[in-house]
Amino acid sequence: MSAVVPDHPSRLHRTASAVVERDLGALLVTPSADLRWLVGYRPPPLERLTCLVLRPEGPSVLVVPALERPLAEASSAGRLVEIAAWDETDDPYALVGRIVGGDGPVACSDRMWATHLLRLQAAMGDRAFVSATPILGPLRAVKDGQELALLERAARYADEAFGRLVATRLETLNEREVAGRVAELLVQIGHDDVAFTIVGAGPNGASPHHEPGDRELHAGDAVVLDFGGRTGGYCSDLSRTVAVVESPRGFEAVYEVVREAQEAAFRAVRPGVPAEEVDRVARTVISDAGYGELFIHRTGHGIGLEEHEAPYIVAGNEEPLRPGMCFSIEPGIYLPGAFGVRIEDVVAVTDDGAERLNRASRDLEIVR
Amino acid sequence: MSAVVPDHPSRLHRTASAVVERDLGALLVTPSADLRWLVGYRPPPLERLTCLVLRPEGPSVLVVPALERPLAEASSAGRLVEIAAWDETDDPYALVGRIVGGDGPVACSDRMWATHLLRLQAAMGDRAFVSATPILGPLRAVKDGQELALLERAARYADEAFGRLVATRLETLNEREVAGRVAELLVQIGHDDVAFTIVGAGPNGASPHHEPGDRELHAGDAVVLDFGGRTGGYCSDLSRTVAVVESPRGFEAVYEVVREAQEAAFRAVRPGVPAEEVDRVARTVISDAGYGELFIHRTGHGIGLEEHEAPYIVAGNEEPLRPGMCFSIEPGIYLPGAFGVRIEDVVAVTDDGAERLNRASRDLEIVR
Repeated sequence: MSAVVPDHPSRLHRTASAVVERDLGALLVTPSADLRWLVGYRPPPLERLTCLVLRPEGPSVLVVPALERPLAEASSAGRLVEIAAWDETDDPYALVGRIVGGDGPVACSDRMWATHLLRLQAAMGDRAFVSATPILGPLRAVKDGQELALLERAARYADEAFGRLVATRLETLNEREVAGRVAELLVQIGHDDVAFTIVGAGPNGASPHHEPGDRELHAGDAVVLDFGGRTGGYCSDLSRTVAVVESPRGFEAVYEVVREAQEAAFRAVRPGVPAEEVDRVARTVISDAGYGELFIHRTGHGIGLEEHEAPYIVAGNEEPLRPGMCFSIEPGIYLPGAFGVRIEDVVAVTDDGAERLNRASRDLEIVR
Repeated sequence: MSAVVPDHPSRLHRTASAVVERDLGALLVTPSADLRWLVGYRPPPLERLTCLVLRPEGPSVLVVPALERPLAEASSAGRLVEIAAWDETDDPYALVGRIVGGDGPVACSDRMWATHLLRLQAAMGDRAFVSATPILGPLRAVKDGQELALLERAARYADEAFGRLVATRLETLNEREVAGRVAELLVQIGHDDVAFTIVGAGPNGASPHHEPGDRELHAGDAVVLDFGGRTGGYCSDLSRTVAVVESPRGFEAVYEVVREAQEAAFRAVRPGVPAEEVDRVARTVISDAGYGELFIHRTGHGIGLEEHEAPYIVAGNEEPLRPGMCFSIEPGIYLPGAFGVRIEDVVAVTDDGAERLNRASRDLEIVR
């Protein structure tokens, strides 16, 4: 049975230990998935500084604008860390500098805005600033039971949305209308909100992040569908490529290569394997089939509170996979002017291999 | 007649002139309202670096991940600037460093993520990095005709949402249900999406950024409503405070003070007046009535492509108001444990004074 609440005390403790091990002066976290993961606090992402200060000694302090003190105190952060409020005419950067104190490099979370980082750097003089990702990336990459349960639920919702979508007639709808239908389904089925909806019909499918437009779906179009939503903060991310009424010329052969690459990459996943190895396996299948130049992106990305997070499944990432890591496997082949094919599942590393969180069929689907 | 398309060439030209005037080496803009304002490009806000490089000499270059090259080329940016794509295993930070070249401080946009800023700083060695806000803040703060038309439309939608909301029965709904109804109305009336919905009933209204929860609205509750959406990228932001069935004890006197403060601040707006003067006027009315300690935030903020942007209406901001600036005027009084009152309109500075974009009545409204 999975825990139903996030284990913030353990997360704070493990992060604080890493701060000590690495001889850091402090770790600073502004509103982001990092902050939510650590203390469960999600203030409105505005320009006033909110910043969690984790120190090697002394309690952690959440610096908040005075008008959000009640919000912070009522959140789970109010039970986990000290709250320090600043007034509208105070200098919150100097306040953070005083709380940090001591010496040693200051690590900051990846999504901190430049407006805050530049002013923190100015307030703390010659202090070295480094990225907090070497600490928070690996910690967040390994999901606990509560997180796995939410990622599984999100994946199930995405599968269901795909199933219901392809059971309806899509011919003559345009990409924007299909994207709208996907968005409706994602929420109807259970997601709290929609993260993104990519619909690339015909040649538009060759643009991996194509923005849905007024191109209509016609018989003989391949259509790349890539979408996700969030449930309890955790993301889904599913891609399938379908053909409308009939396959375009050359499509089925390319589809089969992508499907084999996706399957081979999935089979390569197990604890201890370097992340880049999964990319290499997918890329080899596609290169051997002669399409290497047309697989223009990495094989996948971690997923959790963010759509994209560690571990990245890309050449050069030697990080060994560990049980509990969750990431996408999404090889693709993109033929400019013709069509694209991408097949994507989210998978979880288990003790001795991997499990697909998405169960939607990967067989070629011909839709109406 | 307002222009119907954003004048990106003029915006790019004025920004480039400021880069030269300030002897900057370059100005860097990652996905954000700044990027949208400059070139109309809105890629998915993910971890791969997308960065517009504006240089004192030579054409501007938009650095994009290879998989988003088609997206960038198809956008308005494709007609305005050069596109340089990087592959998944390239170092995009070194690429930006090479494009920047020369010397002089590098300005970066406020919303750039630390993950990018820290790596750009590392890639460019001892180069000084500064905030781009002294350049982009004042340029974006003055709205052109196309922008004013969108802000007016957004304000009209928000007014209409408030009007329809208070015509319905709210007693016994909880805050979350009221927030849901506001969100539905915002979109139904015409907004593209919802930015935020604050509903603070009774004592919860004393927390200015209260997150709507399961507190039910009862007779004798004051309720702070503060919400906004976006249309064509531009934001609405309206606050009104209503009483359910009857006013709580002491509410009407406090309401009247806030209404007078809001009115006095509005009357203080005209070109040449320092932004902080508008704050001072509102604060004086509230302090004179004895509630100074309970007005715990600034009087307002600029609004446009972002919910909060320059000019900030706060003590210490000596920036003179200029025609075309748009900002909120939203004084408030917060009585912990009892209720809050906030009244907010968005106003535009005209050639000789100011105009309210919001027209919803500021009279005390008793709802069912």
